[in-house]
Amino acid sequence: MNNLAREDFIKLDTLDLIKKVREEFALPKDVIYFDGNSLGPLPKNTIKSLELVIQREWGDGLIRSWNEENWINLPRNLGNQLAPLIGAKEGEVIVVDSTSINLFKVLSSALMLNKNRKVIVSEAANFPSDLYILEGVNNMFGESYERCLIDEGDDEIEKYIDSSTAVVVLSHINYKTGRITDLKKITTFAHEKGALVVWDISHSVGVLPMNLHDLGVDFAVGCTYKHLNGGPGAPGFLFVHSSLIEKVSQPLTGWLGHIKPFDFEVEYQPANDINKFICGTPPIIAYKAIESGLEIFKDLSIIEIREKSIKLSEMFIQLMQQECTEFGFTLFSPKNSEQRGSQISFLHENAYSIIQALISHGIIGDYREPNVMRFGISPLYMRFEDVWNAITCLREIMQTGEWQSEKFKNKNYVT
Amino acid sequence: MNNLAREDFIKLDTLDLIKKVREEFALPKDVIYFDGNSLGPLPKNTIKSLELVIQREWGDGLIRSWNEENWINLPRNLGNQLAPLIGAKEGEVIVVDSTSINLFKVLSSALMLNKNRKVIVSEAANFPSDLYILEGVNNMFGESYERCLIDEGDDEIEKYIDSSTAVVVLSHINYKTGRITDLKKITTFAHEKGALVVWDISHSVGVLPMNLHDLGVDFAVGCTYKHLNGGPGAPGFLFVHSSLIEKVSQPLTGWLGHIKPFDFEVEYQPANDINKFICGTPPIIAYKAIESGLEIFKDLSIIEIREKSIKLSEMFIQLMQQECTEFGFTLFSPKNSEQRGSQISFLHENAYSIIQALISHGIIGDYREPNVMRFGISPLYMRFEDVWNAITCLREIMQTGEWQSEKFKNKNYVT
Repeated sequence: MNNLAREDFIKLDTLDLIKKVREEFALPKDVIYFDGNSLGPLPKNTIKSLELVIQREWGDGLIRSWNEENWINLPRNLGNQLAPLIGAKEGEVIVVDSTSINLFKVLSSALMLNKNRKVIVSEAANFPSDLYILEGVNNMFGESYERCLIDEGDDEIEKYIDSSTAVVVLSHINYKTGRITDLKKITTFAHEKGALVVWDISHSVGVLPMNLHDLGVDFAVGCTYKHLNGGPGAPGFLFVHSSLIEKVSQPLTGWLGHIKPFDFEVEYQPANDINKFICGTPPIIAYKAIESGLEIFKDLSIIEIREKSIKLSEMFIQLMQQECTEFGFTLFSPKNSEQRGSQISFLHENAYSIIQALISHGIIGDYREPNVMRFGISPLYMRFEDVWNAITCLREIMQTGEWQSEKFKNKNYVT
Repeated sequence: MNNLAREDFIKLDTLDLIKKVREEFALPKDVIYFDGNSLGPLPKNTIKSLELVIQREWGDGLIRSWNEENWINLPRNLGNQLAPLIGAKEGEVIVVDSTSINLFKVLSSALMLNKNRKVIVSEAANFPSDLYILEGVNNMFGESYERCLIDEGDDEIEKYIDSSTAVVVLSHINYKTGRITDLKKITTFAHEKGALVVWDISHSVGVLPMNLHDLGVDFAVGCTYKHLNGGPGAPGFLFVHSSLIEKVSQPLTGWLGHIKPFDFEVEYQPANDINKFICGTPPIIAYKAIESGLEIFKDLSIIEIREKSIKLSEMFIQLMQQECTEFGFTLFSPKNSEQRGSQISFLHENAYSIIQALISHGIIGDYREPNVMRFGISPLYMRFEDVWNAITCLREIMQTGEWQSEKFKNKNYVT
């Protein structure tokens, strides 16, 4: 294989069919952003739509906007706007609360549906919040469930799923390694054994094609502030298969999940649709940011997004091999593109300082304990040239020993 | 008593010690706003602070702002900013999730603390979401609790509290009538009987002085989008008495409630402070709106706010008697100011149409089933002149029969 050169990357940019989408984002000039898997950047339209909701809808419209601007239906309308990205039908998705709270709801729902079974299967390498919620739900049910946490790296998930399994709770893409878990295979297998599935699609929504409805996925939860660019800490979403919506219930029974919230009845009667998963009053300003983030996807093909993501990732890995092999980086993500989401992780014993040094050059990736460097791949706004510039900068940081500077050692980080 | 005249109201405005606070709000010119008890108006500073968080902190700062702008500590820092308004100590309040979800957390906490007792006492006239959450929590605990719902209008709450009572869940101010429940008296009595208390202070925070810490209140929840002017659906808050924080637990165990969230450990270990009540990632843009809303209170005395609220309310009721008695309005709120929060309700068989007619004149109050007209009293920006103008307009609507117009009949409202 010939050595890759800058021109190869520039050429890929000229061939990029969705390169114009980058113009939709208000990216700072001096930044190459590899953290869209953690917090997506600001869409330009969001600036306008938030100004509108703040000054016109809230400021001038005041309480009237709940009706006149249809704020009251935003959770459901945004859910329907998001649905095509995950292969959901209208009425199967709702934008509400946080991912963790949504997991609490749907996991409770699943356990109530499958109440004669007493094992919850998950992975020890799942996102910790998902594991904590699993503990919380189990405590709530009087610790009557057994947790079966599959070890990291054990690919034979099926062997842990049997007739005792109530529900399988997995992440579609692992937050640390970027590894994809086969959603179709596990869902089918779990269903054969009579278990229900809950998928956390926080890291895959917006970058991986998926077809939750047709695969018969029971429940899913996800995040809008990563690849959907909905803003810092933007509300999460949840998916419930249409075949289950009528029969499920969930414990966070707030007024906006009531069938007639404005009748102010004393007894709770859940909505007979996906609205039963709403609890309290939704934060409208945050919702409007999600809305304009989602609009960017309207005319895009998720297949095309995935193709660009794979190509960016392959070029990233290949260039790392070419430029940085000598510095002791180990690819932590799967090498096979089919098994890798839209992020690439490398291990390095000095991962923290190296990431800090990169950030000081405007190349923003992130660090995860104990030695993981994560680079999110964001096909909507990432250029192939960015990959070239980032890795040649990394090479220089390693060659000059710049990363060893005292200022990159202090672990005063939070995320 | 002499008849009230317009000059009496103008004079009270000139004597108003906090009249300048009105300038902090971006109120539309053609509106007299009596719905601040439902959705507070937009503070002018919020326009600027949201522009800053959107464009500079999110847009330019991107993921770095979690550290550099201290986003990660907003739930706690905003809690501390809110604390003086409710007589809480530093570290007793956190801004997080919605009021309903917070009630779910603290009610669960209370029941786990007092686990040998099996009765939950509340009022049938409590805000329905609180009653629904009470049902939800009870379902979660296997329906092992008995709900004791005191009838509307029964003032002898104490007679329902005894040695079987686990927890008393009440609203400080009733959402429909504006009636104040005696927080000090009930808290003291409940404690004598060994019961815990959870107060919903959604309608009192920002307008009633209170001293939750010194009164030994166990738990409280509340809302920031009413009298705190935090924006539509802005996150709620919760209060836990410092003496309980270490020993309580709650079931919504998300990653940001973990003692070391960024260690990404497999097992949940709750924070040893109020942070244990955080669940998922907080919506930062919504938080910034709360922050600038709270800043308005910084140099204000809650006693002075309450005094103005009482004076406004007394003038409102007196003028209603003078101008509108003949039209069949019945005061639904307590007549005694000591027993009335910062809102006034009237009953009228045509309440819905009358409220709609008032709104068409820019006088915004609201309607609650089946025949309630609610007028929120907002001392921060309300003028005595507004009261005069509103009630003289109401008189005209009644005299001319304008409210009978077809266009005011269609109940196509949501809130």
